[in-house]
Amino acid sequence: LSPQRELDVVVLGSALVDVIASATDDQIAALGLRKGGMTLVGEQEAERIYAAMGPAVEVSGGSAVNTAVGVCSMGGRAACVARVADDTLGRVFAHDVRAAGVGFDHRPSPPPPATGRCLVMVSPDAERTMCTYLGAASRLGPEDVDPQVVSKAAVLYAEGYLWDMEPAKRAMEEAAAVARRSGAKVALSLSDPFCVERHRRELLGLVGRQVDLLFANEEEAKLLFGTDELAGALSRLEDLVEAFAVTRGPAGSVVSSPAGPLEVPAAPAAQVVDTTGAGDLYAAGFLFGYVRALAPEHCARLGALAASEVISHLGARPRQPLAQLARRAGLVPA
Amino acid sequence: LSPQRELDVVVLGSALVDVIASATDDQIAALGLRKGGMTLVGEQEAERIYAAMGPAVEVSGGSAVNTAVGVCSMGGRAACVARVADDTLGRVFAHDVRAAGVGFDHRPSPPPPATGRCLVMVSPDAERTMCTYLGAASRLGPEDVDPQVVSKAAVLYAEGYLWDMEPAKRAMEEAAAVARRSGAKVALSLSDPFCVERHRRELLGLVGRQVDLLFANEEEAKLLFGTDELAGALSRLEDLVEAFAVTRGPAGSVVSSPAGPLEVPAAPAAQVVDTTGAGDLYAAGFLFGYVRALAPEHCARLGALAASEVISHLGARPRQPLAQLARRAGLVPA
Repeated sequence: LSPQRELDVVVLGSALVDVIASATDDQIAALGLRKGGMTLVGEQEAERIYAAMGPAVEVSGGSAVNTAVGVCSMGGRAACVARVADDTLGRVFAHDVRAAGVGFDHRPSPPPPATGRCLVMVSPDAERTMCTYLGAASRLGPEDVDPQVVSKAAVLYAEGYLWDMEPAKRAMEEAAAVARRSGAKVALSLSDPFCVERHRRELLGLVGRQVDLLFANEEEAKLLFGTDELAGALSRLEDLVEAFAVTRGPAGSVVSSPAGPLEVPAAPAAQVVDTTGAGDLYAAGFLFGYVRALAPEHCARLGALAASEVISHLGARPRQPLAQLARRAGLVPA
Repeated sequence: LSPQRELDVVVLGSALVDVIASATDDQIAALGLRKGGMTLVGEQEAERIYAAMGPAVEVSGGSAVNTAVGVCSMGGRAACVARVADDTLGRVFAHDVRAAGVGFDHRPSPPPPATGRCLVMVSPDAERTMCTYLGAASRLGPEDVDPQVVSKAAVLYAEGYLWDMEPAKRAMEEAAAVARRSGAKVALSLSDPFCVERHRRELLGLVGRQVDLLFANEEEAKLLFGTDELAGALSRLEDLVEAFAVTRGPAGSVVSSPAGPLEVPAAPAAQVVDTTGAGDLYAAGFLFGYVRALAPEHCARLGALAASEVISHLGARPRQPLAQLARRAGLVPA
């Protein structure tokens, strides 16, 4: 790991604007959606669901991009590789990511397809159900990967969602090759249980061959190895990757360490309003520590802190500077 | 007052999407803005300020339209007369207002001008500073007033901001004439101290001639009569209008009553995050009670309750059903 690089992390992911509304479990069921999951939809289907949704709030999102924003909010340096269209939501996305300090060197293409959006329905229990219209994000390809940017980063981080798109997978292969040559680490988030089910074999191959650091939640980790037992999945992960962090919601996370898997508690949240982005921000905090060669438990605590901030309000981008929260919590020097 | 009408309130106002970001007082000063005020800007100036703003959240807004949404959230019936363009923000605005149950029968025109937006900078003390690019909202005119819709309402409610635009003033005159003929009451909100300064003479004339119910904050009420003393302003208001409600932030409000001005405390807020919309939602709660011929103090308490909800989060639209909060507070029957 090279902590002296110009960038801590470069992320590869989908550029999405989140459209967030409250919904009851009945409304989610009536729309035919799986509560807690992410469903890919076409533009017409997205319009149908949007029309049925309540009053909404728009916040820039995208799983891996949220992580890049979180790294910058921690005081780190990040850039993102993602695609938007030259339209209103594309300008909103670019403004928000750059205003957060994330490098985003991208020339948007004229629509169609329009900038992607993620319709997020938040249940009274703060669980989120998502429908994603990828739009311009689905055009992410190898030509978007600038080797100069990727080779500046200590870690290349990708979201598992990319495996839903053929050209994005090739973009990831390209970026991983650059990362390898430059001596950077490769990190992957499994993103979503259904995404793991769709691409289990490919993701498993990638984890074994290319991934140094894996992020997953408990369900995704178990699905990856087709097991019902977390212990079994963790043991397989120990064989396959250099480091991992498996999140378990309010139960905290389990991270790899020289002494074996280590359980680290969640950070207390003032209130739990919307769990969107909890995993993305956990990864941000963890990566910030990882790049600085902090101990696994320390990385996990930074991840937990970042996640606790983002679940306390609507949207998957931090509203308070995470660096300040981390200082107050004594997790980084004052 | 005719409580049996199809609509409680029809509002006339600017259709805006709020673009909300945190900002320090120094940042607001560096942009040359007056903290706590609303500045009208052109499209280029709006772009310049947006570029300097931090990561933002987009929420539909517009002062009088927020009031209409609040009336529906209280369980009432409202419609709005407002103009958007046929563009992304226009569709967002129309979705949100209709999803909130507000009638909005409007055929958007192709841009330019684009749908209006209000750049909202929220200071650490929860005060908001606004820059408005009116865009399509500035085209509101008499032809947008459907006499059939206006004559269905018990109250016609307009925002003072309309006095910044010549055709919108004529729309208000037209709508007020329809309201008069149908026996509806006419309500006006003074909107903003600077707006009162800009149009003091005209607004004063209107209040004396056309307005039954006036909403203002303390500063606006004093400015309208060119006095430093609230008591003097209230006494003038008693002569000019049938009813008034003057809000005083955390100090509550003063409302007219048969026994003279009545002080009513503010409702406790769980947290104060963003005061945007406090006055708009106060008016919504008050109007809901007013249309139902509730006592002035009861109306003021409904207003205070609605305001306390909207200042507890970002954005000027309620996130929790106000009817439910009002039932819990014992202000409407369970």
